[in-house]
Order: sequence, then structure tokens, then C-alpha cells
Amino acid sequence: MYSLNVRDHFMIAHSFQGEVFGPAQKLHGATYVVDATFRRAELDEDGLVVDIGLASETLRRTLAAMNYRNLDEEPDFVGKNTTTEFLAREIFDRIAAAVRAGELGKGALGLSSICVTLHESHVAWGSYEGKP
Amino acid sequence: MYSLNVRDHFMIAHSFQGEVFGPAQKLHGATYVVDATFRRAELDEDGLVVDIGLASETLRRTLAAMNYRNLDEEPDFVGKNTTTEFLAREIFDRIAAAVRAGELGKGALGLSSICVTLHESHVAWGSYEGKP
Amino acid sequence: MYSLNVRDHFMIAHSFQGEVFGPAQKLHGATYVVDATFRRAELDEDGLVVDIGLASETLRRTLAAMNYRNLDEEPDFVGKNTTTEFLAREIFDRIAAAVRAGELGKGALGLSSICVTLHESHVAWGSYEGKP
Amino acid sequence: MYSLNVRDHFMIAHSFQGEVFGPAQKLHGATYVVDATFRRAELDEDGLVVDIGLASETLRRTLAAMNYRNLDEEPDFVGKNTTTEFLAREIFDRIAAAVRAGELGKGALGLSSICVTLHESHVAWGSYEGKP
Amino acid sequence: MYSLNVRDHFMIAHSFQGEVFGPAQKLHGATYVVDATFRRAELDEDGLVVDIGLASETLRRTLAAMNYRNLDEEPDFVGKNTTTEFLAREIFDRIAAAVRAGELGKGALGLSSICVTLHESHVAWGSYEGKP
Amino acid sequence: MYSLNVRDHFMIAHSFQGEVFGPAQKLHGATYVVDATFRRAELDEDGLVVDIGLASETLRRTLAAMNYRNLDEEPDFVGKNTTTEFLAREIFDRIAAAVRAGELGKGALGLSSICVTLHESHVAWGSYEGKP
Repeated sequence: MYSLNVRDHFMIAHSFQGEVFGPAQKLHGATYVVDATFRRAELDEDGLVVDIGLASETLRRTLAAMNYRNLDEEPDFVGKNTTTEFLAREIFDRIAAAVRAGELGKGALGLSSICVTLHESHVAWGSYEGKP
Repeated sequence: MYSLNVRDHFMIAHSFQGEVFGPAQKLHGATYVVDATFRRAELDEDGLVVDIGLASETLRRTLAAMNYRNLDEEPDFVGKNTTTEFLAREIFDRIAAAVRAGELGKGALGLSSICVTLHESHVAWGSYEGKP
Repeated sequence: MYSLNVRDHFMIAHSFQGEVFGPAQKLHGATYVVDATFRRAELDEDGLVVDIGLASETLRRTLAAMNYRNLDEEPDFVGKNTTTEFLAREIFDRIAAAVRAGELGKGALGLSSICVTLHESHVAWGSYEGKP
Repeated sequence: MYSLNVRDHFMIAHSFQGEVFGPAQKLHGATYVVDATFRRAELDEDGLVVDIGLASETLRRTLAAMNYRNLDEEPDFVGKNTTTEFLAREIFDRIAAAVRAGELGKGALGLSSICVTLHESHVAWGSYEGKP
Repeated sequence: MYSLNVRDHFMIAHSFQGEVFGPAQKLHGATYVVDATFRRAELDEDGLVVDIGLASETLRRTLAAMNYRNLDEEPDFVGKNTTTEFLAREIFDRIAAAVRAGELGKGALGLSSICVTLHESHVAWGSYEGKP
Repeated sequence: MYSLNVRDHFMIAHSFQGEVFGPAQKLHGATYVVDATFRRAELDEDGLVVDIGLASETLRRTLAAMNYRNLDEEPDFVGKNTTTEFLAREIFDRIAAAVRAGELGKGALGLSSICVTLHESHVAWGSYEGKP
């Protein structure tokens, strides 16, 4: 199994609902350093897992749609707890949709899985991995 | 598959038995920076992989029981080679027991696997992954 | 010159005033991974730069007073741009005051300088260094 | 499942053929920081995944055969695009061959998989994982 | 003293002249992860060390002029040993010239020093620091 | 001012004397990842801060003399608290002596300072910088 990873970041404000979140129920924020890892069993015709330029641009564009926002007020997230693991899935879904729409090239249609990891500090991260 | 990771560290002395260990047969020591990664197929009722506060506290408490010790003299480890991979399994077993005992909350009973990684330097690490 | 560094982190929401800040004028947030570096020309009577336990606790307590907040609404910061470099200075001032108040022990009175660094992502950080 | 990882690096020049590579079609180069991760279901008779000394030496020797080279002129690579993912597979194949030849010891014959990861910058990496 | 740092990278081929360089006399290459650190005694009128957007863009543009090149054939470097420390100085000179030309804004004219660090692997880096 | 850095590591056991050290009074251990940074105002005749091969070898040999030891029983350290900052100075002294003895080459006689940093975990490090 081959993998290729690209990294970028975004910075948001949000708050959580529910006692389990303790002080994180207050409006606060986070920098998320995001790894998008693309996997496939065999390389494509160009000898690649995925075009690294298209992969980087897709990640950048996906994060730009959330960057410098208060997620509590974003229509997509109202009433939801935008935890690290929730956001990993959300970003996965958006990148997977871009892959299926052909935005990462024809070769990317052969990807077997994508893993999105959000590093929220030097001691914590969350991720979601699934089939595109 | 979702994952959530927390990190902490501990510092111990130990020595190894057997020629394969070369100079590490002498009493020496290590800092282990430890990642505990929790995985589950779907999020729990709170939208979490696991309560990150309970996960961090369980890791802290597990490492505290070994921290600042000479493992050669600890009853649990007498006569054993406490290699990086052995310790990864040992810490996995203790965290898995805490999960099964409900110490990480009811949601944690749905975890599909736990991976414990011990970084022993900037060039070497060992891990153990299994079902809780 | 000797140095000793301890690291911790905090997570806040804030927004900036002024066109130079572009999209960061909107409410967003950040994780800051914070290094507090203590320096002195010679070691103290215990052979230390500073008591690492007291240093870690002082850093933790200083960051806790800002953690999980919206800095735009904190009385200390209303009307101010809480940029990375501004916050580095603010945290420096608070740690320096703790040093002068003897909270890091008598030995810490001999510190020649303190440097506070805030890592805001994998590609950007800011710091402030001065005499306590 | 147990894993053990060792890290080293090598520095090469190369160029790529094909429009998909854009400016990387020109002769340029890279530092690759390489992780070789060895996995097995149970520890061997010495309580190890693999002899870390032999693993480190095998990785060092494998990378030395490519280090400080222009890969475009190496007989093994003439006419090939030595992308990060291609090189990960190439290094995997060489380490796997060493394992099968017994160069990492008898215990290494029980390895279930090996993963080779090449970090090409702070934002990109590629890997290949397979059975030895 | 305040500091602000931005990071980017570039990838080049080159070779060195002189026996002291051993195997690095052959054509090889490197990824350089580059930190540009800007320092000033007091913040500017906007409360900044330097406009982080302009700083990032200046670093990106400076590295783009060398990226994906064989430095042995670049007019600026013919006959020179483009070591890590040499390149750190070269990039410093180009960023310092941009600062003096006002490309980082009026506030940047008050910078007291700039430090450029090139990380060439996980175990080696070189830097140059001077006044702009 | 130019700087060049090389990195290596060593693993030791030790204990501390004095109530200020709390649980670290017990025999424990540490991995120290060590950076040796060499500085000089101008490059030498070869265009270098220092021969990176000789610098790496000097660091390796210096650390080998302490590696896999119980420092409490080493003649050089009996009765001393081998704290991170103390060891940084000790390693500095040994490297500085090697520089003065010409072991890093004639060019190294022009070094203006050397900084030795010991990373003891992901959250703590200590260093000593001085003239060779």
C-alpha cells in the first residue's frame, strides 16, 4: 500500500455544548495543522499516488472555506459540536467529494482510502480515515 | 475509522539481559514520549472518540506508576527485558484494563482498538496496537 | 549562559482591528504552544537555572488564566490586537512578575533573561525576550 | 500488532519526466528523512520486534547506496521517475530482500510487514507498506 | 526583543568543490526547510514585528527564485560552494534587500536583525543572522 | 553571525540529591537528544562554519563516553547532580576542549561560541553557550 501526505493549517473559533466539555464550553479557538494522506494499492499511470500539486491545492481550498471563521456561526455547523474528530470527518468528506468529482485528476479515482488528521496542539490530534 | 491521540512522557532507568543488547546490558535509562491513540468506527453519543480529559488523565496516571523508577527493581518487571516494544504492550494492557473498567466513560466501551507508541529518541520508536 | 525551557499550550478566540490583518479581522482562534526559556550566567546553589517544577507550574497557571477564552472580551485585552508577538510579551510580563515576587524560588531572582515563544502553527511563531 | 521504527536520511539530485511534474522536470534535489517501520504480531524469542542495531545498520547501508547521487544517472533508475512514493517502494524492496536473506537475524523472518516512509519536507511525505 | 518567524522550503541540486566535502563532491541535492526570523526592540504602529503576510510572501518569492534548480548552473552561484551556511547568508541578503526596498512595509524599516535558518535534515541546520 | 548545528543522542541512568528534586531523587533515567551549535562571525577558508563531518564525529564520540551509563557511578560525576543544564555544560566543555586541541580542524579555532542543548522530553530542554 502506497501513501502520500500533504500538510496545511487553519485557525478557527468555536465553543462546545455539553458538560463533558468542561471549560471548552466557552468560546475559544484552535489552530489545526492538517495532514491529508492519500492511499492506493498501486501507483497510477504517471507513477504517482496522486498529483501532489492538485492534492495540496485541494487541501488549501478546503481549509480556506473554514479558515478565520467562528464555526458556531457557520451555517454548516450551527448546533453541532465541531470537535477535532468531527472536523477531521468533515474535511475528509469534502476532500473525498473533490476526488469523486475528478478535481484531483483521473488517477485519483483509484485511491483506496484517505486519512485526514488534525493536530490541535503538541499533545493531541484526531483523525478520520475512510474510502473516498 | 476515527482516531484520537493524547501525549505524555516518563523517565526510567533499566538494563537488558542478553548479548543481543550489546552496551544496553549496562544500567542506563530513557525518556519515553508516549502517544496513546484511541480508535472507533463511529463517534459516541457526545460526538467523541473518547473523552479527551479522561484519556489524558488515564495516560498520566498510567505513566506515573512507572515514572522516576529503576524498572529492574520493580516487582512487575524483575527478570524481564523492558524494551520499548515490551513497555508499549505493558502500557497498552494497563490502559485497556482502565477502558474495560469504565474509567474512560461508557462511550469508551465502544473503542475498536488502542495504539500505544513510545518515542525513545529522535530516531527510534516502538508501539503496540490491539483491541481493548 | 545557561538556559532551561518548559513547554505548555492554550487555546483562545480573538479578532484583529485594522486592514493590515485582512481575513484575520474576523473572529477566529488559535492554539498557542508556548515555550518559556529561563537564562542565567551561572547555576544557582542547587546547580539549577531554575526549579523546573516551579517553572512548569508558573507557566501552566499563567496560561490557564487565558485558556478557553475569547480574548476580545477579556478586560485586560479589550480594544487591543492580541497578536502572537503581543501575547508573547504579555505572558513574559506575567512570568517576570511571578519571578520578581519569588514564586519561582530565591534562585530565580538571579535570572538574567526570560524568553517566551508562542508557536501558532507549523510555519509561524513569535517571541519576546527581556530581563525579569 | 507490534511496531519498531528507525530513522536515517539521504540527499540526492534528480529530475522528472512528464508535464504533470511542472517545474520539477528540471534537475533539482531532495533530502529524504526515512523511517523504516517493522511490524510483527508477537515478539521474537529475545522479546523484540527486530534487533534495533541490525535494523539501523540495514537502513544506513541501504540509504548509503543512493546517498550523494544524481539518481538520473544511476543504472537502477535511468528512465524512471524517482518520485517519493517510487523511492519508498524501492527502499522497501531492498530492506525486504535483506530481511529475507537473514541480514536482520532469524527473528526478522517472522515480520508481518515493513513500512518505509520518506519525509521530503515539513509538509509532504510518501510511504510504501508491504509484506517482506 | 521581539521576534516573528515564518517557514517555507525549497529543493535544489548542487555539488561541492574541495576534498573536505568527501562524497558531497558528487552532484546530489537537498530539501531546505527555511525559517526567516525578524527581530525588533519595540513593536511598530500596528503592534507588529512585521506584517506576517508580507514576510511569508517575501520568503516564498525569495525561495522560488532558487527552487527546482541545479545551483551549479545558476549564474549567481557558478564556482561557489553553496553550503547550508552560504545559502543562509544568500537568502538573508535577498530578504534584507527586500526589507530595505520597503517591500515588507514601512514598519519593517525598524527591524534590528533578521535570522535565516536552513534545516537540511532532522539532524543538521545552518543559519545566518545580521542587521538588514 | 553564522551557525551550524549537528544532532545526536545518548541514554543514561542517574538520580539527584536534594529535596528540590522531589521524585527525581530516585534512580531513574533519560534520553537526551543533543544539539551542538557552532557559531562564527565569518566563514573559514573553505566557506564553512566548521567541517560538519568532524563536528558530527566529535559530538558522537563525546556522547559515546557517557552513553549507556549510570552517571551516579561514573568517576567524573560522583556526588554531583547531573541535571540537564549541568550536562549541557559538561558536554560543552568536552567539545570546546576538542576544538582547542584542533580535533575539528584549523578553521574551528575561529569559532566565536558553541551552544550545547539537551532535549530531555517534548516539553523540556536545557542548554549552555560559551566561548570555546
